[in-house]
Amino acid sequence: MTLRVGVIGTGMIGQDHIRRLTQVVSGAQVVAVTDANEMVAKEVASRLPDATVHPSGQHLVADERVDAVVVCSWGPTHEEYVLAAVAAGKPVFCEKPLATTPEACRNIIDAEVAHGSRLVQVGFMRRYDESYRALKDVIDSGQVGAPLIYYSGHRNPSVPEHYTKDMAIVDTAVHDFDVVRWLLGEELAAIRVLAAKPNSLGGDLQDPLLMIIESASGVLVNVETSVNIRYGYDIRGEVIGETGTAALADRGLVVVRSANRVGVEVPEDWRQRFITAYDVEFQEWINAVSRGLGAVGPSAWDGYAAQVVCDAGVNALYSGDRVEIELGTKPALYG
Amino acid sequence: MTLRVGVIGTGMIGQDHIRRLTQVVSGAQVVAVTDANEMVAKEVASRLPDATVHPSGQHLVADERVDAVVVCSWGPTHEEYVLAAVAAGKPVFCEKPLATTPEACRNIIDAEVAHGSRLVQVGFMRRYDESYRALKDVIDSGQVGAPLIYYSGHRNPSVPEHYTKDMAIVDTAVHDFDVVRWLLGEELAAIRVLAAKPNSLGGDLQDPLLMIIESASGVLVNVETSVNIRYGYDIRGEVIGETGTAALADRGLVVVRSANRVGVEVPEDWRQRFITAYDVEFQEWINAVSRGLGAVGPSAWDGYAAQVVCDAGVNALYSGDRVEIELGTKPALYG
Amino acid sequence: MTLRVGVIGTGMIGQDHIRRLTQVVSGAQVVAVTDANEMVAKEVASRLPDATVHPSGQHLVADERVDAVVVCSWGPTHEEYVLAAVAAGKPVFCEKPLATTPEACRNIIDAEVAHGSRLVQVGFMRRYDESYRALKDVIDSGQVGAPLIYYSGHRNPSVPEHYTKDMAIVDTAVHDFDVVRWLLGEELAAIRVLAAKPNSLGGDLQDPLLMIIESASGVLVNVETSVNIRYGYDIRGEVIGETGTAALADRGLVVVRSANRVGVEVPEDWRQRFITAYDVEFQEWINAVSRGLGAVGPSAWDGYAAQVVCDAGVNALYSGDRVEIELGTKPALYG
Amino acid sequence: MTLRVGVIGTGMIGQDHIRRLTQVVSGAQVVAVTDANEMVAKEVASRLPDATVHPSGQHLVADERVDAVVVCSWGPTHEEYVLAAVAAGKPVFCEKPLATTPEACRNIIDAEVAHGSRLVQVGFMRRYDESYRALKDVIDSGQVGAPLIYYSGHRNPSVPEHYTKDMAIVDTAVHDFDVVRWLLGEELAAIRVLAAKPNSLGGDLQDPLLMIIESASGVLVNVETSVNIRYGYDIRGEVIGETGTAALADRGLVVVRSANRVGVEVPEDWRQRFITAYDVEFQEWINAVSRGLGAVGPSAWDGYAAQVVCDAGVNALYSGDRVEIELGTKPALYG
Repeated sequence: MTLRVGVIGTGMIGQDHIRRLTQVVSGAQVVAVTDANEMVAKEVASRLPDATVHPSGQHLVADERVDAVVVCSWGPTHEEYVLAAVAAGKPVFCEKPLATTPEACRNIIDAEVAHGSRLVQVGFMRRYDESYRALKDVIDSGQVGAPLIYYSGHRNPSVPEHYTKDMAIVDTAVHDFDVVRWLLGEELAAIRVLAAKPNSLGGDLQDPLLMIIESASGVLVNVETSVNIRYGYDIRGEVIGETGTAALADRGLVVVRSANRVGVEVPEDWRQRFITAYDVEFQEWINAVSRGLGAVGPSAWDGYAAQVVCDAGVNALYSGDRVEIELGTKPALYG
Repeated sequence: MTLRVGVIGTGMIGQDHIRRLTQVVSGAQVVAVTDANEMVAKEVASRLPDATVHPSGQHLVADERVDAVVVCSWGPTHEEYVLAAVAAGKPVFCEKPLATTPEACRNIIDAEVAHGSRLVQVGFMRRYDESYRALKDVIDSGQVGAPLIYYSGHRNPSVPEHYTKDMAIVDTAVHDFDVVRWLLGEELAAIRVLAAKPNSLGGDLQDPLLMIIESASGVLVNVETSVNIRYGYDIRGEVIGETGTAALADRGLVVVRSANRVGVEVPEDWRQRFITAYDVEFQEWINAVSRGLGAVGPSAWDGYAAQVVCDAGVNALYSGDRVEIELGTKPALYG
Repeated sequence: MTLRVGVIGTGMIGQDHIRRLTQVVSGAQVVAVTDANEMVAKEVASRLPDATVHPSGQHLVADERVDAVVVCSWGPTHEEYVLAAVAAGKPVFCEKPLATTPEACRNIIDAEVAHGSRLVQVGFMRRYDESYRALKDVIDSGQVGAPLIYYSGHRNPSVPEHYTKDMAIVDTAVHDFDVVRWLLGEELAAIRVLAAKPNSLGGDLQDPLLMIIESASGVLVNVETSVNIRYGYDIRGEVIGETGTAALADRGLVVVRSANRVGVEVPEDWRQRFITAYDVEFQEWINAVSRGLGAVGPSAWDGYAAQVVCDAGVNALYSGDRVEIELGTKPALYG
Repeated sequence: MTLRVGVIGTGMIGQDHIRRLTQVVSGAQVVAVTDANEMVAKEVASRLPDATVHPSGQHLVADERVDAVVVCSWGPTHEEYVLAAVAAGKPVFCEKPLATTPEACRNIIDAEVAHGSRLVQVGFMRRYDESYRALKDVIDSGQVGAPLIYYSGHRNPSVPEHYTKDMAIVDTAVHDFDVVRWLLGEELAAIRVLAAKPNSLGGDLQDPLLMIIESASGVLVNVETSVNIRYGYDIRGEVIGETGTAALADRGLVVVRSANRVGVEVPEDWRQRFITAYDVEFQEWINAVSRGLGAVGPSAWDGYAAQVVCDAGVNALYSGDRVEIELGTKPALYG
């Protein structure tokens, strides 16, 4: 009952997912790969026991041995591969973004709705992080009352040269947008983006940013992106409820007393912080797909909503205005 | 060399300061009191060894035995008593607010500038709190880099019936405004006020509020007031710097492990949280005045600036707009 | 390249390990089972795709389809099954204890030494816990200096009726004995056992106990067992080094502020605390065995040493004396 | 109603207490001083408004202007000065130790009992520390159940050259002995002293030490002295109760995130840690004495008991044995 997976895109992320599928999680086998760079695909396949190299994503999707598809190719190609998988009726796990425009996401939604059941899962791995899950449990338990404000802090020690102003929203804050939608269980309705005094370590970049978002029910969400903050990769989250608050705890494992300080470690990078979330994400996807459920995790609608918020955010960043987030009607398929 | 103090206003706060001056701090004696309610003033004086009861604040200020004046009367009367003290060349400690309008504060500034040296100190006691002082030390040390964002959380378990919408700004957030000016060492330049989804425990009150303030240099200051949050009286503060962050620590003294939880206590009210700050504030005022310094703590300018920010905040609350904070020129007396 | 595992003992622990081998970790398949209660063994096998039920552990070890053996039967039977596996030259994972007497453990050591390479791994899962691993990393890094004292706290909310005085040592503290040997990288040399004022919730049980152990190099190890402490399952560990200290951090994931407290959760039971350690333990065992290494985790020597410390501890408990721990010579096989 | 205090011994501690009495606390005046070194006494007096220099402690006690006496002279002289004060019927605050032998302490007890009411207070300032007081409140509240074990950690970054082996007990652990008696509300009954592997930074000193003490009711008390531990001056205390635990919290005021660590400061020395406790200790002593109560803080009995435990501890250190602590009968005067 091993799930036979085909992987489209064998770059860094694809290779990491292949390692995960073959050495970490239970119940899966990688039987097919493809990549824009065929050399890389062949090299990766050579290290797998029985994997076919396909000339294209479409060929891979069509392969009868492939039960389910993982898409980790370049963002602009996601739409066509996901659509191909849906057309073939095969479950597909698509790394972020689902597609690079709201329209492209809508195409996928339309196809999936036409198919009549869920097949698409988007790689918002924070939903599989044990800390976020515990935070959601606390919120849902009611022990701090109804959420009224949420603070989300997304801090990176540094970003590469090619990181541009927009990326603080579409690459960085997009994770916060999704996780907030999931934690609050509702859509986001409007966004403002304010630039703080710029961090001198960030060159010309407008960093940090403070995004003030209103949820549909009126919760104020405060997303801070600080991407040159040096001290560590630090993901903060705190909900202010009617009667109490709940926040992601620091996760350092050892309290060290040394040199007049007592404290714990802060992660160095996203890998250290979220590696386990990726493992859980894939294990749960494999379990669901193997049980005949097309997908139970983040949906095409979630991927679409995140893109719409990103679009509104970029618009707000450049205009300085409060920009409304218009999602249109949510198909019944997405609950 | 005991400082002989006259106290104007012997209500709850006045009586607490008299207790402080006579039983807690070193180097002071209360020699004169007055109150709008003469009965109360007499009753309070009867428990002091050698205190005169005066028919008015002006009489008290004129009393030759009075070296220095403490004003804790009703807010609208502050202006005249502080002006009387300045006219008499006597040091005066005035509880918040310095005066109830920016104009009245300006009158005090003008009088003090005409006098030529500082005589007025305003009761912003947070500057004397050991946690805030330690936070300022960390900021000034440069160990987290230049401040770019500051989060200020002001949480009250509940507020009395007569608490109105404006009071979240002029009574509650005014403390945050002052302490942020002091921590950052610069003026505030503009303010927006956003209402979150209202706490159902707060009746018709618009609570919580999120105030987004820009400092003169561009630091974004986020002031949250949550005044029906039940869980405790909790004062939070965190600066996001270029290379790190620094936050007020929880101050619980005992870590208890019980019933599947480990944690510390959160204060129940402002008294528990700030009682020591009041003691330090008065000891340092007495020390300074006894050494012939008119005042070294929060100045008339600080009292004025806080009122201007409050005015702008109330304006922003009702208009929904970003409102600029216009202070005018700062006299050289205030450095 | 899937490792084919045979499981001896299909009670609660055996079933949990079968679940782990089939649904959690990667690279293993359960192909054979046996149990003293054949009905149970058959029932368990019926839920596996292709598993043989054997009449005895010896038959299971002899099965050619079985690459490696997991022993989770009743403690007194461990010796014979482990010896059978060693005789067959098959890797064997044995749950605690390796055997119930030092002599039986010695028999296994002798057999393994005669075989000439390691085949036996003992289920001391704490060595696979991420917190203990991080603590060991800190110790080994030298950042707190050479260890001089180690505090180990082993706290259970309650214990079953049949829990006897000895069990605080042989069932409970045995975990602390092993993990301390591993953290310090040396043997334990002597032990005293002191009974504290008895917990009235523990009936006639002598609880808590404080064990004062001396390591070979003179480190003082303080093991506290509190097995009726109600508040939670709490595993504490702190090393006092020459220049600093390092302790296992609390692992609560969410900081909740509620009802005048701020804090995190304490685990309810060992499962919540160590479930992941078991998963890691088995994944690493499978990985090692699949690579042709017989075993790389806790060895027969470790199992033997733990039993000798337990024997000395029980002796110390009843005599009230300081009892020396005599291990004899360590075979070269164990490094 | 100012209390007129005479201070015997104007060395470092005496000068610090004079500063405290004149500039920090309320209600006291230093009117007389004396010191073995008359030059120092005169110099100190010259900075006080109206203080007499006496040729001896006896003269100072006899001075009619002196209402109450503070003894901070060399330890071996404490007995005679305290006895002189008791003979004169004057309240006396005596720094640790009350006297240097149990016999000398007994002489003071006898004199005070003969006097018929308490006059003597001993300077065990930890009882005035807010953290210890909060810990005692938690214990007394019953929220962690009856105490069964207590861990006391006394850590110094370093000690002076002249620090000898005994001093870990008579100078360092004596504070732990007193505070444990006070926290548990009972006497200590027996003591063992174990030397851990010696800290190489401590030269020939036997450091750290672990003292295992049994209270009268059977609570096991574990006192660790680590006096070369470099990382800071760190006072730890944790009670293990029947249903939970309670520990002194770290007291750092600012949580700093920097360089991949998050944490707070540890004090550098005892002054930073306990300065406020001394202030409270003196304010409460002045308040009690001014109200005509001879003393309400740590009594001559407490001073005596501490010395007896120290004697037993030194005996245990050299003999390696468990040594019983024999206090004899407690006079009714001490409750």
